[in-house]
Amino acid sequence: MAEQNLDLRTRKFWGWGFADTGITDAEVDTLGTMIRDKFGFPIHDLAKAPTIDEIELRDPRVTPPDTLAHICKSDTWTRAEHTLGKNLGDFVRGLERKFDNPPDFVAFPRNERDVVSILDWAHDNAVAVIPYGGGSSVAQGIEPIVTDDYRGAITVDLRHLNQVLEIDRESRSARIQGGVLGPDMENQLRPHGLSMRFFLQAFEFSSLGGWIATRAAGHFATGATQIDDSVQSMRVVTPSGTMQTRRLPCDGAGVSADRMFIGSEGTLGIITEAWMRLQDKPTFKVATSVPFDNFTNAVNAIRALSQSGLQPSNCRLLDPTESLLSGASKSDSILVVAFESADHELHAWMQRAAQICADHGGRVSKEALQGVSSPDAGHSGAAGRWRDFFVRGPYFKEGYTRMGVLRETFETACTWSAFPELHARVVEETTKAAKRECGDGVVACRFTHVYPDGPAPYYTVLAPAKQGAEVEQWAAIKAAASEAVLAAGGTITHHHAVGRFHRPWYDQQRPELFASALQSVKKTVDPSGIMNPGVLVDPR
Amino acid sequence: MAEQNLDLRTRKFWGWGFADTGITDAEVDTLGTMIRDKFGFPIHDLAKAPTIDEIELRDPRVTPPDTLAHICKSDTWTRAEHTLGKNLGDFVRGLERKFDNPPDFVAFPRNERDVVSILDWAHDNAVAVIPYGGGSSVAQGIEPIVTDDYRGAITVDLRHLNQVLEIDRESRSARIQGGVLGPDMENQLRPHGLSMRFFLQAFEFSSLGGWIATRAAGHFATGATQIDDSVQSMRVVTPSGTMQTRRLPCDGAGVSADRMFIGSEGTLGIITEAWMRLQDKPTFKVATSVPFDNFTNAVNAIRALSQSGLQPSNCRLLDPTESLLSGASKSDSILVVAFESADHELHAWMQRAAQICADHGGRVSKEALQGVSSPDAGHSGAAGRWRDFFVRGPYFKEGYTRMGVLRETFETACTWSAFPELHARVVEETTKAAKRECGDGVVACRFTHVYPDGPAPYYTVLAPAKQGAEVEQWAAIKAAASEAVLAAGGTITHHHAVGRFHRPWYDQQRPELFASALQSVKKTVDPSGIMNPGVLVDPR
Repeated sequence: MAEQNLDLRTRKFWGWGFADTGITDAEVDTLGTMIRDKFGFPIHDLAKAPTIDEIELRDPRVTPPDTLAHICKSDTWTRAEHTLGKNLGDFVRGLERKFDNPPDFVAFPRNERDVVSILDWAHDNAVAVIPYGGGSSVAQGIEPIVTDDYRGAITVDLRHLNQVLEIDRESRSARIQGGVLGPDMENQLRPHGLSMRFFLQAFEFSSLGGWIATRAAGHFATGATQIDDSVQSMRVVTPSGTMQTRRLPCDGAGVSADRMFIGSEGTLGIITEAWMRLQDKPTFKVATSVPFDNFTNAVNAIRALSQSGLQPSNCRLLDPTESLLSGASKSDSILVVAFESADHELHAWMQRAAQICADHGGRVSKEALQGVSSPDAGHSGAAGRWRDFFVRGPYFKEGYTRMGVLRETFETACTWSAFPELHARVVEETTKAAKRECGDGVVACRFTHVYPDGPAPYYTVLAPAKQGAEVEQWAAIKAAASEAVLAAGGTITHHHAVGRFHRPWYDQQRPELFASALQSVKKTVDPSGIMNPGVLVDPR
Repeated sequence: MAEQNLDLRTRKFWGWGFADTGITDAEVDTLGTMIRDKFGFPIHDLAKAPTIDEIELRDPRVTPPDTLAHICKSDTWTRAEHTLGKNLGDFVRGLERKFDNPPDFVAFPRNERDVVSILDWAHDNAVAVIPYGGGSSVAQGIEPIVTDDYRGAITVDLRHLNQVLEIDRESRSARIQGGVLGPDMENQLRPHGLSMRFFLQAFEFSSLGGWIATRAAGHFATGATQIDDSVQSMRVVTPSGTMQTRRLPCDGAGVSADRMFIGSEGTLGIITEAWMRLQDKPTFKVATSVPFDNFTNAVNAIRALSQSGLQPSNCRLLDPTESLLSGASKSDSILVVAFESADHELHAWMQRAAQICADHGGRVSKEALQGVSSPDAGHSGAAGRWRDFFVRGPYFKEGYTRMGVLRETFETACTWSAFPELHARVVEETTKAAKRECGDGVVACRFTHVYPDGPAPYYTVLAPAKQGAEVEQWAAIKAAASEAVLAAGGTITHHHAVGRFHRPWYDQQRPELFASALQSVKKTVDPSGIMNPGVLVDPR
């Protein structure tokens, strides 16, 4: 495999992107004008982004042993870069120059033997280990907050485990190292005509191992939405040894070993490799976007689509506020539907999908009813405008914080029957909390994924921030939203993971007996409890 | 919900079916003539089926406490009925009147409280508990073989937990008790226009809880083949308490609690209820069967179908021996393809599938190429003949044993790239072992399910049995087959479960570290190790 250096470029120590790319002040100003015009929020002068010489970190509590020193770094940039994730609180604290929980040092293993050596040393020295892929966690999954039970905390950055090691074209799968980031992986797969087609919003700065550890959901809006379904086998290094599962298209031999480690969020071990199921690069595509006057009709339409068996690759619904926010439409709900295939024309699929939308009151284009793409389905149309907004999303986040707008998202999943009540309560409670905390606020909703038995609603909150109090403001709003989600039968996260941030609600949601079982698994594979403590379950 | 009594009818204590139904001697004679004509095996006079007065059971080692006596039975019929499963060794031992490991008594809980009471009593008294649904295990999953560490072993027959408790039509799901058998469940769902469409071969005598506990694979040959994908949430009673998971269409909050119990084969607890994802009853169907001169071409065709994204509901390949055996064809490989939908016409789907088959050398009907069903796709054609053979299969098994034909099946899954070598080795080693043990033998293969990354091949072995030595003959053949499967990268089971019978090979296949983790889960939820000991993993 060709060596790729894409993910070895220096990344920003705060914000999203490489040190030499990112969002410009002019872009942030444009965003601010848009927010003021659409929602009437006051926009402040842009707070100045931190520079590295302004950052003070506590002294390292531990230093690497001689045997590992050559793969470890403890300079300020490296430690700062690995301190915060990418949620609102992370951006706010970065802007406040508060990097309170840096790792004592960062290890950059070159291979699996290095990973084993690091875990051995950490186990022997009671040092906590934070596995780190792309650093895109919005749930404080990679922030080295640990108790005094540990002598220190180190981060293991897997960026050098970035190779596609083996291709099985016939079985459409590949053996891939866990630390590879999305673009690098796709670059290595492309010459083989293969793709994982797992284009989540954090694609640029998230890793295969991270996707598996957090049960990320990707590109496909129906069917195999979660990474779980694409794992053919995996290799996990734990403090008690290495586990390699058998490569199988499907297995019925007892409890799934893979599924015990998928979603373990770094608390059981480090995923060094996985055989992944891939896709042929699609050669047929058809897309449309359908405006609805009425959100309820649009929900009924997307439910019918989700239960039709048509399995659109894209099937996303924007409510009127989300449409307005993204520029897709001024007042409509927009249903984006697309099919892709490497095998066959898709006229029949789109024709039927369009008919379902029309039956539910959608303003379907005549092209879609004939089974071809709508003229506005390209980059200039509503779907294209929304797509651009989606792709640039992670870059905008620091901009919102700098201009004094509180902007954050949360997401869930629930049954179709639970959705109307969940949606009403979430919007009401979240808006009420935003108004109480910030004086104003709007809540937008989209469906990122849909299933025959329910949607995955994704909410965006926008409110005028009180600078210096954003963390507390958001904590209050998030608590109100989370209580509403749980009370109405949703999950605290469909694909953002639990991390440290969602623990209060996750602890209510997961069955007590299961938590005990998971703790006992942890005790077996991580007897000293060094793996990502604080995330998911506490060591026993 | 209407009370259904279907599964409360008296079942045979040996063989397949109700006491008042089954296979007639005339049917067995016809089967024998067919086997002799096709394969030249000697057919013996039919051995006489056992009658209950011929069966002697050891005395019960334990008796139920007064509080449970009203739901327990220990008569000979009931204990004999719960002694053996449905594999070759079970039929042979039944015919030999050898019922060496009967349960000491059988409990028939009326509700979940009864299940809790039984487990409490068993835990306090060191009595092993064998959960029992339909009794269709072919892997000795329900045979009460336990060590002297236990004071005895009882079977918990869940036939009274047979109700569909709640329907959520909008989310196309239902809350269903674990002990319901296939036909009873479908009868209760039918008035709501819903169906699980999980028509596995053991459908008549297997239960929802059993399907989940063993990761059964069902009707759909592609896509959601395993029951795993249809579990929305579940309720499990363990000796340490009851676990109820949250009802969600998809969840990303940590390791899946459901997946830790799915496939646990009764070793962790008893599944009393599950919310299941259901299907609308299909209103559109299209089917064809495609003969191929050449098995390799047929394999390439079905691989292309599996990777096409068309997701046929049926996509099964019979090799020439399987075609001959089932009467589908004299010398061809037969690829059966069908689509079903409750939403849309399927012409485009079938047209493309037919074209793929034609491209790989299949003799595709002109109707299929036009997207409609072939004339021979009905009950009179090759697919129909095979289907009849499939549905009656479980009834035939006792017939083979009675006529002196060794007939058993095994199944696996592997990647497409591993299949040619696996198939060659399995057929060679299995045939060689059959000839060595029995003097003759044939091995037939079909694909029951296919995935984008590999098939699930299912093998049938037929050989002339030496009456009285069948168990040893089959043990030698099975060992040769299993070694070949594992060496070539397959799994010891795609959907027959591990049970007690597959332990030697499962123990080689599953990662050691995972086994330790699973043992620690068992220790937590079943501290005294009473749940189905001997299956899957040993208590620690």
